Amino acid sequence: MADDHTFHMAPDEFRRHGRSVIDWIADYMATVEAMPVLSQDRPGAVRARLPAHPPEHGEPFETVLSDLTSVILPGVTHWQSPNFFAFFPANVSGPSVLGELVSAALGIQGMLWTTSPACTELETHMLDWIVDMLDLPATFGSGGPGGGVIQDSASSASLCALLAARERVTEGAADKLGVGGALTVYASSQAHSSIEKAVRIAGLGSDNYRVVDVDDAQRMRPEALEAAIAGDVVAGVTPCMVVATVGTTSSMAMDPLRAIGEVCRRFDVWLHVDAAMAGTAAVCPELRGLHDGLELANSYCFNPHKWMFVNFDCDCFYVADRRPLVAALSILPEYLRNAASEAGDVVDYRDWQVPLGRRFRSLKLWFVIRHYGVEGLRHHVREHIAIAADLAKWVEAERDFELAAPVSLNLVCFRHRGGDAFNQALLERVNASGAMYLTHTVLDGSYTLRVSVGGTNTTRAHVEAAWDRICAAASAPEGLVP
Amino acid sequence: MADDHTFHMAPDEFRRHGRSVIDWIADYMATVEAMPVLSQDRPGAVRARLPAHPPEHGEPFETVLSDLTSVILPGVTHWQSPNFFAFFPANVSGPSVLGELVSAALGIQGMLWTTSPACTELETHMLDWIVDMLDLPATFGSGGPGGGVIQDSASSASLCALLAARERVTEGAADKLGVGGALTVYASSQAHSSIEKAVRIAGLGSDNYRVVDVDDAQRMRPEALEAAIAGDVVAGVTPCMVVATVGTTSSMAMDPLRAIGEVCRRFDVWLHVDAAMAGTAAVCPELRGLHDGLELANSYCFNPHKWMFVNFDCDCFYVADRRPLVAALSILPEYLRNAASEAGDVVDYRDWQVPLGRRFRSLKLWFVIRHYGVEGLRHHVREHIAIAADLAKWVEAERDFELAAPVSLNLVCFRHRGGDAFNQALLERVNASGAMYLTHTVLDGSYTLRVSVGGTNTTRAHVEAAWDRICAAASAPEGLVP
Repeated sequence: MADDHTFHMAPDEFRRHGRSVIDWIADYMATVEAMPVLSQDRPGAVRARLPAHPPEHGEPFETVLSDLTSVILPGVTHWQSPNFFAFFPANVSGPSVLGELVSAALGIQGMLWTTSPACTELETHMLDWIVDMLDLPATFGSGGPGGGVIQDSASSASLCALLAARERVTEGAADKLGVGGALTVYASSQAHSSIEKAVRIAGLGSDNYRVVDVDDAQRMRPEALEAAIAGDVVAGVTPCMVVATVGTTSSMAMDPLRAIGEVCRRFDVWLHVDAAMAGTAAVCPELRGLHDGLELANSYCFNPHKWMFVNFDCDCFYVADRRPLVAALSILPEYLRNAASEAGDVVDYRDWQVPLGRRFRSLKLWFVIRHYGVEGLRHHVREHIAIAADLAKWVEAERDFELAAPVSLNLVCFRHRGGDAFNQALLERVNASGAMYLTHTVLDGSYTLRVSVGGTNTTRAHVEAAWDRICAAASAPEGLVP
Repeated sequence: MADDHTFHMAPDEFRRHGRSVIDWIADYMATVEAMPVLSQDRPGAVRARLPAHPPEHGEPFETVLSDLTSVILPGVTHWQSPNFFAFFPANVSGPSVLGELVSAALGIQGMLWTTSPACTELETHMLDWIVDMLDLPATFGSGGPGGGVIQDSASSASLCALLAARERVTEGAADKLGVGGALTVYASSQAHSSIEKAVRIAGLGSDNYRVVDVDDAQRMRPEALEAAIAGDVVAGVTPCMVVATVGTTSSMAMDPLRAIGEVCRRFDVWLHVDAAMAGTAAVCPELRGLHDGLELANSYCFNPHKWMFVNFDCDCFYVADRRPLVAALSILPEYLRNAASEAGDVVDYRDWQVPLGRRFRSLKLWFVIRHYGVEGLRHHVREHIAIAADLAKWVEAERDFELAAPVSLNLVCFRHRGGDAFNQALLERVNASGAMYLTHTVLDGSYTLRVSVGGTNTTRAHVEAAWDRICAAASAPEGLVP
């Protein structure tokens, strides 16, 4: 073999295969609606279609692309189907996919400013644009002591918030000596599981995670929070962080930020606000009430990768003061030293996150915001909310169904009056049909169905069809419960 | 505005713009060699080229793409240039970029098996293929009590290893009660900074991080490790984890795994092996000695996103026993419950990592391994190593230069005999030229230049030209030190 032989895909081959992949994707976008939303594969089915061993010799790209259709697609649950109503959306869009493509091809590392200035500066700039777009507190902008950064997920944002809060309350002792005494974290019973996960990861221990009671609309009760903190202080325990949720996973409940923030100020406890799903709504001025009191928070996050047409991963995480965050996460070995960092006039985002490496994710935000304009994002958020409101009316009009929680933004929680087993069977039947995918939760002790309206291509017609099918399944003559 | 108006990019628009982006990338691939490797932008230059506020109305995609060239590219440090020799490579390839593209477009979440079976099963299968390709211990395969998972980075892999080790040594008490007594972690003075970062994140405290001495080839001294552990045991401290590095960041030193593993077995301490950079080399049978003793490890990671032509992020993390990992990271809220998970016959990778969400990263591995075949990967690894060996000879042949460490795999550490200030000035001069980018470290107290040969398109000619330029800069008549 000649010394200059190469196995690489040359630029012109990339051009050719790239077009095939773009066509494959455009076709997928145009046809995904007709595919069963929830994969019909049984466990092991995908692996059974794959060869046991890696190929010794390279294969033509055409074969790989055709296997993508035959081997992989049947095992895919189609999150981009307009009939996907499960969990929360993870919606994507053309401009976002192309932004991710450019990021992959540039293949740069943004761990330090100097390792690609554009990666750091576009990120800072996009996070500032978003402060503007959502009318977030000015302290989250890069001009003052705080600032924003992209994390992979709200889970990682919560962990980073906790590390900063731990740094602040222990004045660095936890980083040096380890978590010695009890440090407590407070969130409502409806908070995301990632909060308790962060408490465990950071070495605080789940026994020091305080689950705060909620009211009958699943919102944290500030007086219960206050009592919990006060009790811990009396007991000699150190309150470390409170997490308020704007849009809970089960029912999109909104914790009362201002009242919670005032409790936090009184006890000097770090307040982190998790608006992973709902934050995007603040692009609409009439919905900004959900952030009322946010200026009392020390940190905040929301996920453009849920409802802002940016593909995963892209969580925007803000701190009002970046010092404790950087103090908690910065370690500088010799091989990362460089003139720009030493001069102190640049941001090195490696010190704002758990990993060292980071890709050029702000390109996706830049592409999406410029493609849609703020106007376009607002339009689609309003439309999803209007469709959810319609669905709520249809539920209320059906004698056999009831709403299980106040409808909030784009999420409708409801149940059939037939009881838990009936609702579970109903869910399984409609999901098995392949025509839609929805998931459940438990509210006030009862099994509850959730329809989350947020798919890029979900229209009123899709939700109408889904509701018709749910009603038909519920009244099927053969019955639902065995 | 009509109710059915949409701001989305329709499939056929995506087809058109997608082709433009593919062409842009193919052109970039073909021309990146001629661009200044290290961005010449000053701090703030990129932001100064961006509008202060987000656009109210959407813009044509053509404008965005043309701004990519004019606004962003000057601020990019070109990690994919064949003249990039800094840090470690983060090499990418055509098939990998196309795999990432498909992953972005499918936009699925792989947190649970049921949320897209193909995401979980292809990942398990690719991690098994890699056990085969690198001849890793069979315990890392999915058939037994262990298994593999993709993490974003070796930093996150080390953190997860530590959480599993903490779970095991405290029998779950740390997760429940918090990190109470002192738990210690051991690594050599040459280990990656992410190890100490993980120790701090997990709440152990940097005072409980033990830096173990190295020999004159920068390898951990097993007898120093043994003494440190024995001393801690006598002092009533609990050894939690040892990290051995296969290919250190400064000089690609290889810690003696087998001797370290035997110490760990004797004291029953978790051994994590960080082969982030060097692991890929084991695709070549003649290089597998670097993993000798790996069967004594509890966990292991390496990064296909460094040297295996897979774009960031893609770290392969293996455990010999998955139970402590899952016990440390699993929390099951109602809204994630599903039949497949309850039946216990599937893997849910959310319990193997810090975040909840995860994208379809195994597509990149599948595309790359099938495109190159094991043969192709082996060929390029061997070529990079051969080029580094040549460079080492050229260094040794120059009277004014010396090797600063034994050459290991594809990294050459060297210095000019003119002293630290001279070498620093030399580095700055060659980097400022734009013709190449290399970085430094400190070995045995002296400033050291590093040339890391691992770019996808780096050939012997590029390294020769780089060496000529380094020699020319060192002997420039105007001198280097002001």
